[in-house]
Amino acid sequence: MMHDMRHETDSLGAMDLPRTCLWGIHTQRAIENFPISGLSLSMFPEFIRSLAWVKKACARANLSLGVLTAEKARVIEEVCDEIIAGRWHDAFRVDMIQGGAGTSTNMNANEVIANLGLLKMGYKPGDYAHLHPNDDVNRSQSTNDVYPTALRLAMVSQCDAFSAAQRRLIERLKERADAFAHIRKIGRTQLQDAVPMTLGQEFAGYATTIAEDVEIIGRLSNLLLEVNLGGTAIGTRVNTPAGYAEIAVAELAQVSGLHAKLASDLIEASSDTGAYVTFSGVLKRIAVKLSKICNDLRLLSSGPRSGFNEIRLPAVQAGSSIMPGKINPVIPEVVNQVAFQVIGNDLTVTMAAEGGQLQLNAFEPVIVLNVLQSMRILMQAMDTLAERCVKGIEANVAQCEGALENSLVLATMLVPHIGYEKAAKVAKTALADNAAVAETAIKLGYATAETIDAMLR
Amino acid sequence: MMHDMRHETDSLGAMDLPRTCLWGIHTQRAIENFPISGLSLSMFPEFIRSLAWVKKACARANLSLGVLTAEKARVIEEVCDEIIAGRWHDAFRVDMIQGGAGTSTNMNANEVIANLGLLKMGYKPGDYAHLHPNDDVNRSQSTNDVYPTALRLAMVSQCDAFSAAQRRLIERLKERADAFAHIRKIGRTQLQDAVPMTLGQEFAGYATTIAEDVEIIGRLSNLLLEVNLGGTAIGTRVNTPAGYAEIAVAELAQVSGLHAKLASDLIEASSDTGAYVTFSGVLKRIAVKLSKICNDLRLLSSGPRSGFNEIRLPAVQAGSSIMPGKINPVIPEVVNQVAFQVIGNDLTVTMAAEGGQLQLNAFEPVIVLNVLQSMRILMQAMDTLAERCVKGIEANVAQCEGALENSLVLATMLVPHIGYEKAAKVAKTALADNAAVAETAIKLGYATAETIDAMLR
Amino acid sequence: MMHDMRHETDSLGAMDLPRTCLWGIHTQRAIENFPISGLSLSMFPEFIRSLAWVKKACARANLSLGVLTAEKARVIEEVCDEIIAGRWHDAFRVDMIQGGAGTSTNMNANEVIANLGLLKMGYKPGDYAHLHPNDDVNRSQSTNDVYPTALRLAMVSQCDAFSAAQRRLIERLKERADAFAHIRKIGRTQLQDAVPMTLGQEFAGYATTIAEDVEIIGRLSNLLLEVNLGGTAIGTRVNTPAGYAEIAVAELAQVSGLHAKLASDLIEASSDTGAYVTFSGVLKRIAVKLSKICNDLRLLSSGPRSGFNEIRLPAVQAGSSIMPGKINPVIPEVVNQVAFQVIGNDLTVTMAAEGGQLQLNAFEPVIVLNVLQSMRILMQAMDTLAERCVKGIEANVAQCEGALENSLVLATMLVPHIGYEKAAKVAKTALADNAAVAETAIKLGYATAETIDAMLR
Amino acid sequence: MMHDMRHETDSLGAMDLPRTCLWGIHTQRAIENFPISGLSLSMFPEFIRSLAWVKKACARANLSLGVLTAEKARVIEEVCDEIIAGRWHDAFRVDMIQGGAGTSTNMNANEVIANLGLLKMGYKPGDYAHLHPNDDVNRSQSTNDVYPTALRLAMVSQCDAFSAAQRRLIERLKERADAFAHIRKIGRTQLQDAVPMTLGQEFAGYATTIAEDVEIIGRLSNLLLEVNLGGTAIGTRVNTPAGYAEIAVAELAQVSGLHAKLASDLIEASSDTGAYVTFSGVLKRIAVKLSKICNDLRLLSSGPRSGFNEIRLPAVQAGSSIMPGKINPVIPEVVNQVAFQVIGNDLTVTMAAEGGQLQLNAFEPVIVLNVLQSMRILMQAMDTLAERCVKGIEANVAQCEGALENSLVLATMLVPHIGYEKAAKVAKTALADNAAVAETAIKLGYATAETIDAMLR
Repeated sequence: MMHDMRHETDSLGAMDLPRTCLWGIHTQRAIENFPISGLSLSMFPEFIRSLAWVKKACARANLSLGVLTAEKARVIEEVCDEIIAGRWHDAFRVDMIQGGAGTSTNMNANEVIANLGLLKMGYKPGDYAHLHPNDDVNRSQSTNDVYPTALRLAMVSQCDAFSAAQRRLIERLKERADAFAHIRKIGRTQLQDAVPMTLGQEFAGYATTIAEDVEIIGRLSNLLLEVNLGGTAIGTRVNTPAGYAEIAVAELAQVSGLHAKLASDLIEASSDTGAYVTFSGVLKRIAVKLSKICNDLRLLSSGPRSGFNEIRLPAVQAGSSIMPGKINPVIPEVVNQVAFQVIGNDLTVTMAAEGGQLQLNAFEPVIVLNVLQSMRILMQAMDTLAERCVKGIEANVAQCEGALENSLVLATMLVPHIGYEKAAKVAKTALADNAAVAETAIKLGYATAETIDAMLR
Repeated sequence: MMHDMRHETDSLGAMDLPRTCLWGIHTQRAIENFPISGLSLSMFPEFIRSLAWVKKACARANLSLGVLTAEKARVIEEVCDEIIAGRWHDAFRVDMIQGGAGTSTNMNANEVIANLGLLKMGYKPGDYAHLHPNDDVNRSQSTNDVYPTALRLAMVSQCDAFSAAQRRLIERLKERADAFAHIRKIGRTQLQDAVPMTLGQEFAGYATTIAEDVEIIGRLSNLLLEVNLGGTAIGTRVNTPAGYAEIAVAELAQVSGLHAKLASDLIEASSDTGAYVTFSGVLKRIAVKLSKICNDLRLLSSGPRSGFNEIRLPAVQAGSSIMPGKINPVIPEVVNQVAFQVIGNDLTVTMAAEGGQLQLNAFEPVIVLNVLQSMRILMQAMDTLAERCVKGIEANVAQCEGALENSLVLATMLVPHIGYEKAAKVAKTALADNAAVAETAIKLGYATAETIDAMLR
Repeated sequence: MMHDMRHETDSLGAMDLPRTCLWGIHTQRAIENFPISGLSLSMFPEFIRSLAWVKKACARANLSLGVLTAEKARVIEEVCDEIIAGRWHDAFRVDMIQGGAGTSTNMNANEVIANLGLLKMGYKPGDYAHLHPNDDVNRSQSTNDVYPTALRLAMVSQCDAFSAAQRRLIERLKERADAFAHIRKIGRTQLQDAVPMTLGQEFAGYATTIAEDVEIIGRLSNLLLEVNLGGTAIGTRVNTPAGYAEIAVAELAQVSGLHAKLASDLIEASSDTGAYVTFSGVLKRIAVKLSKICNDLRLLSSGPRSGFNEIRLPAVQAGSSIMPGKINPVIPEVVNQVAFQVIGNDLTVTMAAEGGQLQLNAFEPVIVLNVLQSMRILMQAMDTLAERCVKGIEANVAQCEGALENSLVLATMLVPHIGYEKAAKVAKTALADNAAVAETAIKLGYATAETIDAMLR
Repeated sequence: MMHDMRHETDSLGAMDLPRTCLWGIHTQRAIENFPISGLSLSMFPEFIRSLAWVKKACARANLSLGVLTAEKARVIEEVCDEIIAGRWHDAFRVDMIQGGAGTSTNMNANEVIANLGLLKMGYKPGDYAHLHPNDDVNRSQSTNDVYPTALRLAMVSQCDAFSAAQRRLIERLKERADAFAHIRKIGRTQLQDAVPMTLGQEFAGYATTIAEDVEIIGRLSNLLLEVNLGGTAIGTRVNTPAGYAEIAVAELAQVSGLHAKLASDLIEASSDTGAYVTFSGVLKRIAVKLSKICNDLRLLSSGPRSGFNEIRLPAVQAGSSIMPGKINPVIPEVVNQVAFQVIGNDLTVTMAAEGGQLQLNAFEPVIVLNVLQSMRILMQAMDTLAERCVKGIEANVAQCEGALENSLVLATMLVPHIGYEKAAKVAKTALADNAAVAETAIKLGYATAETIDAMLR
């Protein structure tokens, strides 16, 4: 059995690893140190891709500054391209919740890249004399610039897909707004009958409120492109050749196709997590809006006979294991829950950000997990809502319009003509008598059959 | 003008204060250092009373251990009695949000007591040679045991009033449950019509859920009675005579009438804020329940014509500045908002607790403010809800029972007899045909006019 | 006694009020209905002023559209100007936490303005036939457009003062950065000695991170200027004359001096609270950053003998009631607590926003309270931090530089020369031997006395 | 290919499933409806086991009441036993975040049990005429009692393991407290040197604070044992034979070995989620305490040369990818992050609980996910902390004791002898002169060489 193993050492001692294992001793220690959430790096391919972009860009920068040989740089680039293409995700095994400000994630990348490179070069995994995880793959780098840079690019790289999901939802809401443009109904404030509106206006409002955030996501993705790559340990550029940061960031922009630019204050950029708080805060805002819309959809479709029953959501599954024929608003419900998760995740991000100390925030890993998870579940939720719910919503026209006719809301329209106090008396009397507003106004002598029509528009 | 002033000094320098000013230099510095929230100590009389209990108990303990003269002890006691009676609240001026772990609050008490004592002894305020804020009033004490002890007693002293408010609300809910015991209606799950229940059962459920927490508040108030008085600075009893802590706590129990007892691990008790987190968490739980109940009340009273309209909340004010006759559920709404405030306050408490370091939590002042405020607004909210809303709720019997008869919920009751799938078909067909369940079941051949009654109970 | 009272009625009944009372029956009912927090409207003058701006602008718009007489418009304007000048704050008595989506606040304003106007016109308070709270002062208005419009302007009107406080803090931080530009010290990551930096870089980073948010506040204040005034109850402009909304908003811009503009989708704008969530989220971000900076200041000044002791905060008060000579970091501590309060308030805002239903968010009052309070305490905290702490911070130069010389951090600088693994061995050996890095590197044979200097810069 | 498929129908239509697929059409629809988090039911074996307990208990109760045949009951029991033994986890595929209050999870269980039962009986999956997911497996049940009952038992079933992890951590802390019992050091308040204590007292305090919660977890697990099984849809026991609930719960207690008992108010128990809020709140409390302890450990081990450096944490991995020899407090750091996650999860639970409406809380799935995840990561965190960190902590005795001797803290001990003001002068002078306290007191004439020893104990 022992001949299937290889031997690796670090400053703490030695360890045996399977001969073909793509990661090394640092990764293995981290796997053992952090058996926390069961959510491994491999579940976040957008982050792995982003790490590979960074490593590739750094190799190029090191090559052009003469601190990495052409062969090593070429091999590192090739391996990174394979990782970017999605070939080696399984080798990224560290738990997303980890101590050490992301060092274990960075070392997982360094070791996997080194070992894959060694294989390409004809060596065995672990023969680090020929390609070293730290001295070559991590050259001119620190976890403290690599990790946040990778997170930022991972977030930005998802922003397009995120905005596309927003737009699809907006589109579906607008379709409904158009379809419902002429259906008159009662608007409600504080769950009480208020004044008339159309069902189309209601759905148009939902489209508007979601649309406001598309632009915000775009603006934020620009902010995220300010990276601290090249600042290394604390932003002082220690252990980098002159001019390295600028070159590395330029390479990164080219490699990733995203307009990364170097932060102006690298010391600040090394420890600051404000951008994540802001981004997560905007995800929270989107979650709040989606939750409000879904609360409304559930209210408006309540019934079918003892509720508002103004709209019908499409049936996507049987609603109950005990109540046959019951159809529940399961899609809005799942979106509500996603919203609650995103709001909780935002608090986790906030606390982690607040806990940063001096030149680094050691709690970035839990920020990474929560921001990426929030983006993902919100995207999924928006698509599910758009395609499995909003798209198929139908109006109960008779209910909407019948209820309006039957309502007391027309009393409000009398106010400019007979004043607030008399109008209030009309409304109160009509409710008590179970009578119509117009009829009551006439009975009370505040209007005649002739004038009433003009008053009510 | 200068002859109206007196001169005080501390280790930082000197300061002039109005000759009759009841507080001294330490308080004055704190007033200037913390112009934060505008919420001064004087707005929390339960906390001031509690501080006076502690000071009085300590004076007695110091007297009995021979480290305070009989005269000084007597004077301190007399002043504390006046403060307990509510005479000097205006002299407690420090902002509730203050740095220094409560030192400024403690010194505000020490200085006011010393100066009031000096006046009683025939001296002028500021003549501390005769009665010293630190050496006499604060003798054998530290902010770090005085302040949390006072907070705990303040909380406990409000628990009775809190539970009484809970009980009044429960009583009102039960009255409604009794009054509505025989009104049948549709129960709803996921806002969809489900199966029959009574309106009385619904209100009895509210009473039950509130009642569960009365006992919890009682149990917690016991936990809070474990105090660290006598531990002084960090729990090692530094600067206290032998046996002091035990005597001081016994005196405190007698003075306050609350069963205070000495914590077993004074080191832990000095820095631990877990009890506040727990207590605030229970307030949050109560807030969540109240909010859920108020959400329900608003739903059930939605309408009056285009909503559920099963109950009518009492009108306590005109609902709208523009829509005459509109009556809004303003009392449930204000309770919802109180709940949101309590939940936010709980987060503040949580973060302050998490931020404690080593032998002390420096952030106790913001904990004090948020816990006491949450208790207060919850109490007010429960009373308002009980007396201005629940008490006067009326049922719309016709709506409740009419809707039930008209509903599809009876399909569920066919399941044990004809199976889930056939029952689902009945429900679906009845909805599509706008027909009744019994009639549809017979039409589909799943039951006969003879068997259907038994099936539907 | 009865002759000192006047009689008012509303749709619920009648009530006696003191003859000279400036508010009326609606306000009085609200005072009795909402005895919640003890924080009355009068404590938020920026909001009262903003309400008066709105009322004045609406009166002008109503005048120009011919739905209000010149005399009434003039009187309303005059009264509003007095309110704007701060004369009548005491008459704004409703609790900030109130049910009814702000109706009680709006009615408090309507009634006070009407009664003050009546007095100006030579009538008695309560003679509403001559100037009516609803029909005249509230003409063409609803709480649902007045209240959020007033909140938005109140927030914007504080933004300048807020940014000024940010700038003062930035200035103080930059002064320190300049003063400390040449003091070399150890940078720390994860609280462990890392690599060299200057104390000036550290403070410059703080200035940078605060500065990023000045611009954000400016951008947000623009967003807040989109108001829904003229949308009335639900955004459909019910009960307004043609063209009213546009004119009212233009008048509002002129009256307030703030560039208010009409929202494009008034239905959406009536119920959406996203702008408050965003704004509160940014306040949270600022709070997180301030808290992190204050955590750092407390760490760097820890000691004086058994801590980091790199800086000395100015002593602003005696630190302890029991430990003489102790000076505590009370200013950073109070700022931390403000941050925790702001973060808790943000959660309250979030929950209130999520709870909105259909055409209105009934929970805006608790949003108003929390947003305005967060702005206020953050401003106070920033000023306190700038003037009472940062301004007077001194460096312990000997400690900073001595510790650096004594440190192991120089091992990192050997990495590009001797590789990661050998450098790790140097660091480990030096720590074990309590020796210097250079000496150890030479002893281990990795460098000579000649080469070592070049390696270490 | 089609011959490998089977055909299933529900009230919405038909669907083809692989012939051997263990789940059915309801599960398949749910898989397609909820592609949200990627976290499937199969990742929570404690919950699957608990579902199987419930299904087994219900089958027994149905058998004993004569509403299920002996064969069907036997087959269901056998299948449940296999699930309990962990054989079929892969068949539980629904996303943990799902709409529908858990119906999809319940149907996933119903369908898998039915199909496994059919195989046992010699039929093919999908031949539900012989064993029906709803009519047989789900007989006398509703999601609304099955799902919360299963959650409660899942939580209780983890409580023992949870408490064991607590106890292991306490044990390790106590070992350190014993080992460090005689090491004297400076206690710190507000990060400033305060008064003497021992390192042992510090660790004993940690043990005490964790120990307080072991009992609380035990008490809560009792509360959780109150289940609503037999209440079915809304707590009215609809579609259950007389006496069913009592029998089912008794069977459940026997099957699970946990003392489940029937809730007294089944209506309330159906919709109430207070128990989860409470439990999650206690997990939050534990998280706060662990985070505080880990903050302390990181502070106390800061250095190694420019920090507090009183303790050394065991090195479990190399600390940095760029700084050789750096050892970081990665274990405390990961525990901090777990704490932040648990606090965020608690907010998600709170919001989901608050969102419940009328007779059911539709958001239980996200509660299930967050409560179970919080329990799991806290357990892992406690074990990691105990075994990989606390167990191996060593004291830097020289640093602890040297710093104490060198400190100013002894000034406090002079207070009872020379008064607060003189002692303050001693402290201030000693700091300015860089001198010792005793020497300074003598120099200032406040003590003699003879008296000083007694004063300082």
